[in-house]
Amino acid sequence: MTSIGTVGKGDRTREAILARGVDVACRVGLGGLTIGDLAAGTNLSKSGLYAHFGSKEALQVAVLDAAAQEFGDVVVLPALRAPRGEARVLALLEGWLACGRLRLPGGCLFVKASTELDEQPGPVRDRLAERHRELVRTIARVFAGGITEGQFRTDADPYQFATDLYGVMLVYYHAHRLLADPRAEARARVAVAALLDTARLDPSAGDDR
Amino acid sequence: MTSIGTVGKGDRTREAILARGVDVACRVGLGGLTIGDLAAGTNLSKSGLYAHFGSKEALQVAVLDAAAQEFGDVVVLPALRAPRGEARVLALLEGWLACGRLRLPGGCLFVKASTELDEQPGPVRDRLAERHRELVRTIARVFAGGITEGQFRTDADPYQFATDLYGVMLVYYHAHRLLADPRAEARARVAVAALLDTARLDPSAGDDR
Repeated sequence: MTSIGTVGKGDRTREAILARGVDVACRVGLGGLTIGDLAAGTNLSKSGLYAHFGSKEALQVAVLDAAAQEFGDVVVLPALRAPRGEARVLALLEGWLACGRLRLPGGCLFVKASTELDEQPGPVRDRLAERHRELVRTIARVFAGGITEGQFRTDADPYQFATDLYGVMLVYYHAHRLLADPRAEARARVAVAALLDTARLDPSAGDDR
Repeated sequence: MTSIGTVGKGDRTREAILARGVDVACRVGLGGLTIGDLAAGTNLSKSGLYAHFGSKEALQVAVLDAAAQEFGDVVVLPALRAPRGEARVLALLEGWLACGRLRLPGGCLFVKASTELDEQPGPVRDRLAERHRELVRTIARVFAGGITEGQFRTDADPYQFATDLYGVMLVYYHAHRLLADPRAEARARVAVAALLDTARLDPSAGDDR
């Protein structure tokens, strides 16, 4: 076996552990995630898992990173293939709604961990906050592309839009999951259409929807 | 001691237990709330607490009701004293923002419990969902007052507004607590101002803000 092959196997093992970690953390919280549970679920020894991660906190950080990677792969990267501007904003919205509809663990972990960790200072909370700030920056950049393209007003605030869109997604997640509200997706689309109406250069363009 | 006095004392004991229950549930989750912990924190016997509530689920439901009552007393009732229409919507917003700023347990319990219970069917989740629907109905009624007063368009959807406002508050809560973002409140006010601009009869009125 070559050293590249060995690295590949180690990477796959790590990916499998983290995928399971994201899944478990979504159900029991990041704080409920233990190296012992993961060892049982992945047929690895606890000492083998410690060798991978070194500590429970390092495992939690790695699980957050894996969830962010999953969200990026499933929601953000496909949206970036849409034309810059409004089309890309809407592609992001649709990918994100699908992520909630399918109950993909990566999306849900960030919502759960936010309320779980908001009063637990330390490296895990710091990483969670940084991952959230990254997401807000990504949304702001996608929106700013619409200003560059001349579709949105030059005085529109990309960070305000990013915050507003995140709020729409939080309430969608809540209405979909807790309330099982069949109008949850439609309301999210109406809310984003209104945000885009406000952002457009010509207010009367809203009538073309 | 009269029987009225006895009822009063029982009520006060129950209130003290529930106030502590809301506080504890905010920190460790509704699922982490035990009759044993509450007994230790209130100097009552576990058997005395069982006599009050009968079961852990009944205690959890009573804690949710107490949190809803607290939110109603601190945020909703004061807002209802403002003039009907936009002033009342803004009073609701300001009371709610203050509730988040002060980290009042009643407000935070609903956000925490939503992600905790969304996949745990049963009477506690049912009560939580019903309390959320009540809140949405309350916001929708407050908004509908603005239609009655001739301030908002007659085709504005009070339930869409209620959902949008709840999203603004969820992302405010998140930005304030997890990200410690000093712009969190300002962004919430800008978002609600934009929602009200859209709702107003005369779109150009938005320039008067």
